[in-house]
Amino acid sequence: MDKVGVWLIGARGSVATTATAGAAAIKAGLAPPQGCVTETPHFPATLVPLAGLVFGGHDITETPLRKRAEQLGRAGVVPPHLPDLIAADLDAADAEIRPGHVPGDRDQAAAAARLSDDIAAFRSRHRLARVVVVNVSSTEPPAAERPEFARLADLEERLAAGADVLPPSSLYAYAAFQAGCGYVEFTPSTGPTLPALAELAALRRVPYAGRDGKTGETLVKSALAPMFASRALRVRSWSGLNLLGGGDGATLADPAARSSKQLSKDQVVAGVFDEPVEGQTHIDFVADLGEWKTAWDHVTFEGFLGVRMALQFTWQGCDSALAAPLVLDLARLVARAHERGRHGPLPELGYFFKNPLGGGEHALAAQYDRLRAFAEELS
Amino acid sequence: MDKVGVWLIGARGSVATTATAGAAAIKAGLAPPQGCVTETPHFPATLVPLAGLVFGGHDITETPLRKRAEQLGRAGVVPPHLPDLIAADLDAADAEIRPGHVPGDRDQAAAAARLSDDIAAFRSRHRLARVVVVNVSSTEPPAAERPEFARLADLEERLAAGADVLPPSSLYAYAAFQAGCGYVEFTPSTGPTLPALAELAALRRVPYAGRDGKTGETLVKSALAPMFASRALRVRSWSGLNLLGGGDGATLADPAARSSKQLSKDQVVAGVFDEPVEGQTHIDFVADLGEWKTAWDHVTFEGFLGVRMALQFTWQGCDSALAAPLVLDLARLVARAHERGRHGPLPELGYFFKNPLGGGEHALAAQYDRLRAFAEELS
Amino acid sequence: MDKVGVWLIGARGSVATTATAGAAAIKAGLAPPQGCVTETPHFPATLVPLAGLVFGGHDITETPLRKRAEQLGRAGVVPPHLPDLIAADLDAADAEIRPGHVPGDRDQAAAAARLSDDIAAFRSRHRLARVVVVNVSSTEPPAAERPEFARLADLEERLAAGADVLPPSSLYAYAAFQAGCGYVEFTPSTGPTLPALAELAALRRVPYAGRDGKTGETLVKSALAPMFASRALRVRSWSGLNLLGGGDGATLADPAARSSKQLSKDQVVAGVFDEPVEGQTHIDFVADLGEWKTAWDHVTFEGFLGVRMALQFTWQGCDSALAAPLVLDLARLVARAHERGRHGPLPELGYFFKNPLGGGEHALAAQYDRLRAFAEELS
Amino acid sequence: MDKVGVWLIGARGSVATTATAGAAAIKAGLAPPQGCVTETPHFPATLVPLAGLVFGGHDITETPLRKRAEQLGRAGVVPPHLPDLIAADLDAADAEIRPGHVPGDRDQAAAAARLSDDIAAFRSRHRLARVVVVNVSSTEPPAAERPEFARLADLEERLAAGADVLPPSSLYAYAAFQAGCGYVEFTPSTGPTLPALAELAALRRVPYAGRDGKTGETLVKSALAPMFASRALRVRSWSGLNLLGGGDGATLADPAARSSKQLSKDQVVAGVFDEPVEGQTHIDFVADLGEWKTAWDHVTFEGFLGVRMALQFTWQGCDSALAAPLVLDLARLVARAHERGRHGPLPELGYFFKNPLGGGEHALAAQYDRLRAFAEELS
Repeated sequence: MDKVGVWLIGARGSVATTATAGAAAIKAGLAPPQGCVTETPHFPATLVPLAGLVFGGHDITETPLRKRAEQLGRAGVVPPHLPDLIAADLDAADAEIRPGHVPGDRDQAAAAARLSDDIAAFRSRHRLARVVVVNVSSTEPPAAERPEFARLADLEERLAAGADVLPPSSLYAYAAFQAGCGYVEFTPSTGPTLPALAELAALRRVPYAGRDGKTGETLVKSALAPMFASRALRVRSWSGLNLLGGGDGATLADPAARSSKQLSKDQVVAGVFDEPVEGQTHIDFVADLGEWKTAWDHVTFEGFLGVRMALQFTWQGCDSALAAPLVLDLARLVARAHERGRHGPLPELGYFFKNPLGGGEHALAAQYDRLRAFAEELS
Repeated sequence: MDKVGVWLIGARGSVATTATAGAAAIKAGLAPPQGCVTETPHFPATLVPLAGLVFGGHDITETPLRKRAEQLGRAGVVPPHLPDLIAADLDAADAEIRPGHVPGDRDQAAAAARLSDDIAAFRSRHRLARVVVVNVSSTEPPAAERPEFARLADLEERLAAGADVLPPSSLYAYAAFQAGCGYVEFTPSTGPTLPALAELAALRRVPYAGRDGKTGETLVKSALAPMFASRALRVRSWSGLNLLGGGDGATLADPAARSSKQLSKDQVVAGVFDEPVEGQTHIDFVADLGEWKTAWDHVTFEGFLGVRMALQFTWQGCDSALAAPLVLDLARLVARAHERGRHGPLPELGYFFKNPLGGGEHALAAQYDRLRAFAEELS
Repeated sequence: MDKVGVWLIGARGSVATTATAGAAAIKAGLAPPQGCVTETPHFPATLVPLAGLVFGGHDITETPLRKRAEQLGRAGVVPPHLPDLIAADLDAADAEIRPGHVPGDRDQAAAAARLSDDIAAFRSRHRLARVVVVNVSSTEPPAAERPEFARLADLEERLAAGADVLPPSSLYAYAAFQAGCGYVEFTPSTGPTLPALAELAALRRVPYAGRDGKTGETLVKSALAPMFASRALRVRSWSGLNLLGGGDGATLADPAARSSKQLSKDQVVAGVFDEPVEGQTHIDFVADLGEWKTAWDHVTFEGFLGVRMALQFTWQGCDSALAAPLVLDLARLVARAHERGRHGPLPELGYFFKNPLGGGEHALAAQYDRLRAFAEELS
Repeated sequence: MDKVGVWLIGARGSVATTATAGAAAIKAGLAPPQGCVTETPHFPATLVPLAGLVFGGHDITETPLRKRAEQLGRAGVVPPHLPDLIAADLDAADAEIRPGHVPGDRDQAAAAARLSDDIAAFRSRHRLARVVVVNVSSTEPPAAERPEFARLADLEERLAAGADVLPPSSLYAYAAFQAGCGYVEFTPSTGPTLPALAELAALRRVPYAGRDGKTGETLVKSALAPMFASRALRVRSWSGLNLLGGGDGATLADPAARSSKQLSKDQVVAGVFDEPVEGQTHIDFVADLGEWKTAWDHVTFEGFLGVRMALQFTWQGCDSALAAPLVLDLARLVARAHERGRHGPLPELGYFFKNPLGGGEHALAAQYDRLRAFAEELS
């Protein structure tokens, strides 16, 4: 069977390391595919098997993947003895990691060409049918609008003139599309959402999906909000506090980056209810939580004859462990969609995202039904 | 348009009083139909309007409905000034309440005939197209098996011999079916679930639905459990503590009655997951909570590479306010199903119940889709 | 026995109205003195009785107290039928409310003289032994430093020159001191904390206490933090989200006012632990909560051999109902301290405050022991 | 300086293993004494140093201590690499563990003599000034009353006649007292609480303390209950659910053993409030929690003018990590009390227990003050 490449932007980060280590562990029979949606019996067996995934990527840090896996072992994200058992796979993936683009290093046109070549070389080196590029690097601040984002010709003219106009995530999406690869924006960053890049994806006939993996508090929100809606219980306020440790938490300590995330998180409630709902979602960096996160949500709602009631929940999860299997699911699904000739945004993958590109609804069960129908259709 | 009767067993209880008062308030434009599922735009307008419902019922207590409504006003279940504004409707409904059957008063055969006559007289007095009997009385202990429950002929032979063999809820279901009425078992009691009564429902061509209205903790469970299942997150334990005040709480202070409720509550988790899940659901009576209830649930689950995570939720609701609008929904839907010639159990109404009669799944969103399709089909 | 005046700044606000209504209800035997610390058997009976308190105050709104009490009755803060039963007391207190100072209306020197005269006139009108002024108005933003705050002579020179330099709460404290009255700063505002005002209090030999009544989340913090400290469990992070409805919530929607409150709230954790503790306390205005507030706190701590553990709590309280009895306690205690010749800050009253003036510790039980000793000493 | 022996009943259990490993780690400078109350600067430095403790004990299982420590390392109770670093200490302690008494093996008189000899031999072998016996074995069901428990002479007559009348924990307490050692009942079992054993302790002039280490939910209760009491807030209900994994949880799956624990847990609320408080505390065994436990408590209370409010908390702790340092504290304190000539129950140690022997109050801060005064007095 054809092999599929998974090219990770942020390939040495926690999510990427967990995904790479996990695929190796499952392949070796050391762990069941817990958390992989596409491994359940509700999905066709025709997707590329997990053992058929080959890993590589870009990163600006140089800590070897094996060492990162050991750190995650100490933090309880992967079993402590796992890194030793899959050392060969980790080293093989590590050998496929190329330096990420450091802003200012060279101009973005040159950078894009180099990044694109890295991906294409990986594909031919391993004789891969397809490569899916997945961005699991740190969250960026929202990007300012620019006129050249509207049309591909204008964008390329600016790049050719030596201008650095693209946010980093969009530079990677550009490089991925130029290499003829599908792309998944797993962060809330801009990535492929510029009209000029949509034009490029159409031109290259490559699919993409995003944005911002739905792994914790927002996942629960998207399961609970439709419950209120279907029962005609009017939600009056929905407030939340997210306490994040780890790398992502540190990034989000920056208010600009945090605002990307908060905007993304607020989509679900706004998307499910007709009437406006009061309340904010706060994000705090709490270093002591390490790779873990805790979120508390408080919901007030109005029932029959105006009676007020409340629901609270606390979610305690390990972000990387929640995200990593979805990265594998998405790589498999986007690769298959690419193979079947789909291009442009894939709204059918909205189940995986806080802010589904290409539209579609936010209710989790409806998203799941759509995902299953899509997988069926592709097989 | 044809009017529909709602005949409530436990007609002076909190749920019944709230339903009666609420229908009057909505009819008078004093409150929006918050909490009524069938009043949302997702349901066809062809069901009997709320203003077309006429209320009556059986109860063994004699406190007038207006006084009960005032008590609920002080407890915050209905707006304090509402009972005055709808006094005429409450009095009208009160005039339609007949004495419930007190065990030992007369034999069950005679009691059934009298109860059945009460319902039939209500129907003709108000020229109602149909009457739906809804049991919202206190929870009974589980009934012991008896050989005569298996066949209608055997059951009627025993009754004719003067034996008192039916649990109270089943006596009411028997009377309802004999009167040619649909029946809703809103409690976890035995009600229509005896094979002999299923036979009678088929014979009289009447529909029925149940069992145990899904109004709080179990509602949330049925929204959250499918989230874990679809994400391939393996739930390892699901524990809960329900603190109930009010009449229902006092009934459930009796361990036998409590066991009916607990059995009913445990269906959802068992129904959604393939593998067994550890944990128990406790029910405590806490008089101080009055008409309110608080439930805490704690869920542990296993994700990618065996990482353990947890979710907790606390639900603070007013049972009567959650149940009452569903009573109105069910009366409308069962009346329409009856009109359309449906008889026997209505599994399409599983959305409303902890333990759906006639089978079907426990995932809330799937139940809702089925309900909408059913409503569409009936219109 | 001598009567004592309670002069409330913000006399028509929720806290003041609840305190006034509550004192009347207790006097009339309509309610037990639940929530009044000085009414428990642990306190000497020599304080002025609740029936010996006479109410008046300043406010810039004109809604009559009886109407405000009815609003609080509908909101569930006071029993709905109470306002009718104590209408005479509410009207009497209402007749003692004088217009508050509206900035810009006249200069602060003239305003202070008028405010001070209002209080003195109240005292002579009712032949009160003493009056205690209690600020329960809205939270102000932190005040900027000014050179004239350092010495009374400089301050009075500036005021005499027609300058408006004092924050509103400090203007009231100035007027109270000038009238020879004790003062309680129940909000986080600046109030009597300027050195110039401390000088004035010493000159007039009047006592004062504050700052920021400890009524909810912070109360719980001050009970729990010493538990960790005494057990040698090292608290690593303490995060919180406060959801406030009502008037106080709306004031705190303003980031400047909110910052006063947050600074005040962060004192406890910093005051109890030797080592720095990570984490923030957020305050959100959620109009839907009305007079209620909900706070969630999340604490991580380290135990034996570095094991990490966690505690969460959710507090659901009615701010005015928690604050009002403390206002009565403070008025009684400050009046007695004044009578006994105490002047300047009263650190012995730290039990009541988030940020005790005059120093002292934050551990609740130690504060309570000190309070009891103080009350004993005064009797 | 004199060395002190710590003789653990259940010496290979989780608590004992953690205490033994922890003392070794602290001695070796591998961990700070986090969680050890007597190591804080508030305690005199004259107690035996942790490095002066020598470990031994009884157990009926034979798994070597080093292996048990490795299991705890995998479970996250002790750092995974610690057991290797302190292997010599673990092996030394393991060599001092003698077989526990297996009921039926021989009669209790002979068993007591053998157990007592084991302890005495340990004392002389290591030239220990004193040995403190600490019971950290599994919880027993409550013991039935027996006439011979009332007087030592009667008890010894029955034992001499070959009868097996003592619950296991009391047999160990008997043996400890016979060997002239102090005793700590860290479980809710009967232990030294029989009048006949009190007589023996007086005769041998040995001190003892207990009962049931206060390590989690009850600790929090004893910090929070006095807060409500001092604020005159009337607690109306206090309900709780404890989810326990691990060995203790499994023992408590037995309803008889669970009842010992529940009785013990209910002391605090009853001990702090004057008026009865509604509510129950449930204990569930949830194997999936491993060495961890989660408790949820829900408290309703009444404030000013009858307003109802609520507090909830969730405690997530590691039982062994919470208990182990207290075992070290207790051994040090009881040894010093013994040295100073104290005998009989030590109510001054009530801070450590759910159900303090010798009486005393349940409020945590008051218990802590008493403990500090006691330590001061002993030094």
